Amino acid sequence: MAKYAIGIDLGGTNIKAGLVDENYKILAESSIPTLVTRPVEAIINDMMLQIVGLTASYPAPQNDIVGIGIGSPGIIDSEKGTVIYSNNFNWKNVPLKGLIEQRTMYKVAITNDANAAALGEVAAGTGRNYRNAIVLTLGTGVGSGIILNGKIFDGCNLGGSEFGHTTLISGGEECTCGRKGCVEAYVSATALIREGRKAMEANPDSMLKKMSDANGGNLDPKMIFDAANQKDPAAAKIVEEYIMHLGDAIVNAINLFRPDIVLLGGGVCNQGNALTIPLNAYVRKHCFGGDKAFIPPIGIAQLDNHAGIIGGAALAFSTLNAPSWF
Amino acid sequence: MAKYAIGIDLGGTNIKAGLVDENYKILAESSIPTLVTRPVEAIINDMMLQIVGLTASYPAPQNDIVGIGIGSPGIIDSEKGTVIYSNNFNWKNVPLKGLIEQRTMYKVAITNDANAAALGEVAAGTGRNYRNAIVLTLGTGVGSGIILNGKIFDGCNLGGSEFGHTTLISGGEECTCGRKGCVEAYVSATALIREGRKAMEANPDSMLKKMSDANGGNLDPKMIFDAANQKDPAAAKIVEEYIMHLGDAIVNAINLFRPDIVLLGGGVCNQGNALTIPLNAYVRKHCFGGDKAFIPPIGIAQLDNHAGIIGGAALAFSTLNAPSWF
Repeated sequence: MAKYAIGIDLGGTNIKAGLVDENYKILAESSIPTLVTRPVEAIINDMMLQIVGLTASYPAPQNDIVGIGIGSPGIIDSEKGTVIYSNNFNWKNVPLKGLIEQRTMYKVAITNDANAAALGEVAAGTGRNYRNAIVLTLGTGVGSGIILNGKIFDGCNLGGSEFGHTTLISGGEECTCGRKGCVEAYVSATALIREGRKAMEANPDSMLKKMSDANGGNLDPKMIFDAANQKDPAAAKIVEEYIMHLGDAIVNAINLFRPDIVLLGGGVCNQGNALTIPLNAYVRKHCFGGDKAFIPPIGIAQLDNHAGIIGGAALAFSTLNAPSWF
Repeated sequence: MAKYAIGIDLGGTNIKAGLVDENYKILAESSIPTLVTRPVEAIINDMMLQIVGLTASYPAPQNDIVGIGIGSPGIIDSEKGTVIYSNNFNWKNVPLKGLIEQRTMYKVAITNDANAAALGEVAAGTGRNYRNAIVLTLGTGVGSGIILNGKIFDGCNLGGSEFGHTTLISGGEECTCGRKGCVEAYVSATALIREGRKAMEANPDSMLKKMSDANGGNLDPKMIFDAANQKDPAAAKIVEEYIMHLGDAIVNAINLFRPDIVLLGGGVCNQGNALTIPLNAYVRKHCFGGDKAFIPPIGIAQLDNHAGIIGGAALAFSTLNAPSWF
């Protein structure tokens, strides 16, 4: 009987891998810089080193390992196991599943990184008591993982589940995808910082500007929330608008999917209650049908940097069976 | 063996009912004015008259009828068979399924009217060769039916699948739901006519104004498209913006669900190619992932006024079994 899985989080900065048991406990893990500009083969080589290292480092019999689940950026064909396109990696039609499978005895399942993180949260994080969840990762971009009835919903054909690339304000701010006004262009950490920089320029005497100057001109979401918390009008306005935009995006997701819970991950979410308290109030006020329909709670994802590893393992547990020769 | 079903389309104007065979052919049908302000019991009585009339009018043995499927406006609890809330009917918690079941020998299934119409299109209309479809009905409001793997997707909890109430331009035009900037507030027939009236006011010498005046001041989507077709600048601008808004809404739906096909129904869709040709071009240009992902075609729904009856019957065929005492 299989009792372990290997989860791999193939990120733009690091390749993180872990050996995970059936209770979603990480027994061993490793991290290697991705160096995305390397040839595919070099990245695969490092993933193989991690796989071999993890299985060697822990006394799990190999036939107790159900397989390997990988979360990868980009548009993924999970049936064929191919990364159709990753802008960040400059990958086109990379048969990731096949490349790993031909070099190990384990079966491999792959999905989009945001899907893996969402599956991890539902398996072992804040979403663990829920079957239907939407997890929005507010980072450089906005990743979305949609879990319906305990399974990843990735759209019916290639390129679905891209909630970050639905419009919040059609014709508005430019998005990385080429459209204008996407959710990502308003609620990513990048968007929050963009608005912060605009505000500093317009308000050179603001507390926000002083905080940034004291940090060598850097600006991050925490500074903006901190300045707002200290009643800096410029920062407070940005936070208020950010919460309204994020609230509107979440209401959209609820009006469509009505999940049991909505979870927020990524750097911005370290703000915790400063984010969830006003968001829960906003959503309660604006969802279609009001109190006649179901209004899910909004919470903070809790697995942090481990969501991808645990989600990858959860994908392996739920979709792979140990090969028959074991 | 069950070979027939009764489909009922409970509309704001008429209650339409039909006896439908397994090939989705309507063998007999009837229509009664709804008169929505009547008590629930009076409306149920008329539905009963239709049910009895249909079964009597056609020589289908009663044990060959699998049951009754009803499409109703409002927020529906399809498991309990209850209309939770219908603004139009002023219904709250009406146990529609139970009220009919206790007066007939047939089982009853209910769903939202937009879902029923979508299921009809997938069963027997333009969507009949597809398992995954989104059907947008562009009428007074915007109804959306989402069919995934041949089944209605109605959200995980009460109040889902309301694509018409996701934002296109957050903070924009007022919507009937209380929010601002919903898809419905930009792409319903009502919205198109609203923009037409604004344009006539701003351009009293326009062809559009003359066409409307010649029709006693009335204005409908056809007039706006006709005037645009005859190069009236005011009307052409409205049509161009309408198609851009509708295109953006459809791109949102595709980026999330990636259905096999998107279908448009409702009055506006009589414009046919004038709508679908520019929309298909717009969507091809703006979907996430471009040609690296799957881009579904956009077509016109074809069942028209019969989509609800056929969809109701399809719901009955797919979810009901004839009671065991037959």
